[in-house]
Amino acid sequence: MRTVVEHRRAALALVAPLPSERVPLDAAEGRVLAGDVRADAALPRWDNSAMDGYAVRAEDVAGAPDGPVVLRVLADLPAGSDAEPDVVPGTAARIMTGAPLPPGADSIVPVEATDGGTDTVRIDVPPRRGAHVRRAGEDVGAGDLVLPAGTLLGAPQIAAAASVGAGDLLVHRAPRVAVLSTGSELVPPGQPLRRGQIPDSNSFGLAAAVRAAGGRALRVGAVPDDVDVLRRVLTDWDGAAPDDRPDLVLTSGGVSMGAFDVVKELLADHAGMEFVSVAMQPGKPQGLGRLPGGTPVVAVPGNPVSALVSFHVFVVPLLRRLRGLADPDPDAERETAVVADGWRTPPAREQYMPVTLTRGVHGAAGGAGLVARRAVPGGSGSHLVAGLARAHGLAVVAADVEEVRPADVLPVLRLGRG
Amino acid sequence: MRTVVEHRRAALALVAPLPSERVPLDAAEGRVLAGDVRADAALPRWDNSAMDGYAVRAEDVAGAPDGPVVLRVLADLPAGSDAEPDVVPGTAARIMTGAPLPPGADSIVPVEATDGGTDTVRIDVPPRRGAHVRRAGEDVGAGDLVLPAGTLLGAPQIAAAASVGAGDLLVHRAPRVAVLSTGSELVPPGQPLRRGQIPDSNSFGLAAAVRAAGGRALRVGAVPDDVDVLRRVLTDWDGAAPDDRPDLVLTSGGVSMGAFDVVKELLADHAGMEFVSVAMQPGKPQGLGRLPGGTPVVAVPGNPVSALVSFHVFVVPLLRRLRGLADPDPDAERETAVVADGWRTPPAREQYMPVTLTRGVHGAAGGAGLVARRAVPGGSGSHLVAGLARAHGLAVVAADVEEVRPADVLPVLRLGRG
Repeated sequence: MRTVVEHRRAALALVAPLPSERVPLDAAEGRVLAGDVRADAALPRWDNSAMDGYAVRAEDVAGAPDGPVVLRVLADLPAGSDAEPDVVPGTAARIMTGAPLPPGADSIVPVEATDGGTDTVRIDVPPRRGAHVRRAGEDVGAGDLVLPAGTLLGAPQIAAAASVGAGDLLVHRAPRVAVLSTGSELVPPGQPLRRGQIPDSNSFGLAAAVRAAGGRALRVGAVPDDVDVLRRVLTDWDGAAPDDRPDLVLTSGGVSMGAFDVVKELLADHAGMEFVSVAMQPGKPQGLGRLPGGTPVVAVPGNPVSALVSFHVFVVPLLRRLRGLADPDPDAERETAVVADGWRTPPAREQYMPVTLTRGVHGAAGGAGLVARRAVPGGSGSHLVAGLARAHGLAVVAADVEEVRPADVLPVLRLGRG
Repeated sequence: MRTVVEHRRAALALVAPLPSERVPLDAAEGRVLAGDVRADAALPRWDNSAMDGYAVRAEDVAGAPDGPVVLRVLADLPAGSDAEPDVVPGTAARIMTGAPLPPGADSIVPVEATDGGTDTVRIDVPPRRGAHVRRAGEDVGAGDLVLPAGTLLGAPQIAAAASVGAGDLLVHRAPRVAVLSTGSELVPPGQPLRRGQIPDSNSFGLAAAVRAAGGRALRVGAVPDDVDVLRRVLTDWDGAAPDDRPDLVLTSGGVSMGAFDVVKELLADHAGMEFVSVAMQPGKPQGLGRLPGGTPVVAVPGNPVSALVSFHVFVVPLLRRLRGLADPDPDAERETAVVADGWRTPPAREQYMPVTLTRGVHGAAGGAGLVARRAVPGGSGSHLVAGLARAHGLAVVAADVEEVRPADVLPVLRLGRG
């Protein structure tokens, strides 16, 4: 049997970072930079005031400890002013936070240390030379690297890009993922069911998972167990405009050894595909490869819990690579949790147990670490979507572990946005 | 001075969960349930097969250990079949995973334990009675609560809702947040700057933060330091269609004591507003309340680092309440990190230090906990957006701490999606 790490490596090998496009800053949240962002000029651009107050020559007000000093106010410098009044001896300029330091001045006296005058100003406390002046280039020098390619763009990164004058950003295209479930028993949720039918949940759950993982879901819905219908659905995109073609096809169901396992039946003989057993629980039967047209496809099992576990273990890293993230395999960043209850685990298979996660005080350092409890005390592998709905994450139990005991520490995969 | 907790309570008191709307499952990701989701029927609906194989009467095949038993195959039951063949003594039905158990049968023999025949089947291993049968109601009983109101809808929750037949969901409307920055020095990023001008970064950074926090950002952009212009912008919505009115107005800048602090100048005398000093660093000057038309407004300082810190400390909880999350104040769920380097902190102010977070082994339990390092070794309060762009979170230092030492454990606020 293939290990989880081997199968994830095979999934990652199917894809490369998507081409780049320029997007305005308002469309950049959640995208990944496709090129470095460098400062086009120093930041701040000019020596400027860090306070609302008065720009002065320090030597003029050195005498203030012995009594107030009065200076003539020769200009008002609001933020945005391009005035450059010469602060000659005996004068000051009223200045707002962020306004450039006028020529001649070397220090800022905060308004709180003055009488706030507009014609003349009385200064009660002498500043040290250079006080409250932000120096040009203090934050970033011209040409400095501000955000490297591969950076995930959140609010701080977008603010930083705007600060250095970037009006738009070169980012990787967001992955388009076609999502379909297979099974003649599936009908759209909300429709009446006759004997043997169940609502299609996988195409909705996996489409939501795609969206949460930064992709665009093209939800095809449920396809019956009919090889011809499935073939038509899977090749329909070949004739579509490039912008409408998926970057990845994600199927659920039809990958084990049943007589109606259509995904396997249709694709197993194709050279670009492989159907394997992976040493994990749930999620043992897995398929991946390329459709005849070349589109990467990941085929996960149809059990809803297995499908979501497979998504987090194999598809999230693949989407991270498509999106252009520097480190697509999130293993290194996995959180850990202390287990509150124990359970027996299957031999020689890596187990993904749905768990609730709460904060609890533990550890020598006294940190409020995570405590994991099984979301479904009955097990991990069965058809227990309602239990999975309570889970915050999946606790990962190594293949060579046969029993998890209370107080064991396990890595956990969050079932959230990524 | 007001404490952070007091000011957050004042922010939360401004809002209530938004009205509900019905959305299809495809639009539900990231929304919050406004009503309980209960199962309309038991799940599974029928006793059904957990394996691909043969539905049999256990008593017919009890003799298999003494040699194979051969049964006549009277029907094929693919998933989705509504056939109800009577499995009389001496017969079996070929059955696929998920198909309802036919009358008379009580056990499933996996295909691997047979010769896979279609007219007759040879059974080599006798099943125990009830083997591989999933019982009706095993997962959820009819009427059971599956997802309570207040649940954040991710992939597992949407899959669970679909499984119990929900075709659409009652969710809280997503908050619409008008975002504007104030300052005559601000020009859109990408435009050439003359002396004294800087790119507007706050309206872009805060709009991205709103999107990451599950809101819809209506980015107004930069408004000059002109009370009349600001008044017009802030009252423009009174005449707008209800669907275009913001649920919250978020301003940055103009809240301290400068001569051009327009937000404060315009709103300070209004009975619904308060401008206060909060015992935090950065982010001391804060304003909040209601505009004359009744719309809640949060006014944060203009320094880009202060603005983003204020957003995470005050606006994220407010948005969580608007979205309908059961517990809007995320304090209880805060992660902790071990500090790698120390620094001195301001007295009597809660400090929010931008930090990078990496995994490191620590603690008695051997867990791979978070290690925090200052993203900007120089400090937390200055105009260091480029440093904030490297930060993964904000380490929170209590007001009564004057020095953080290496190996101290601090709560951290993640600067990510929430």
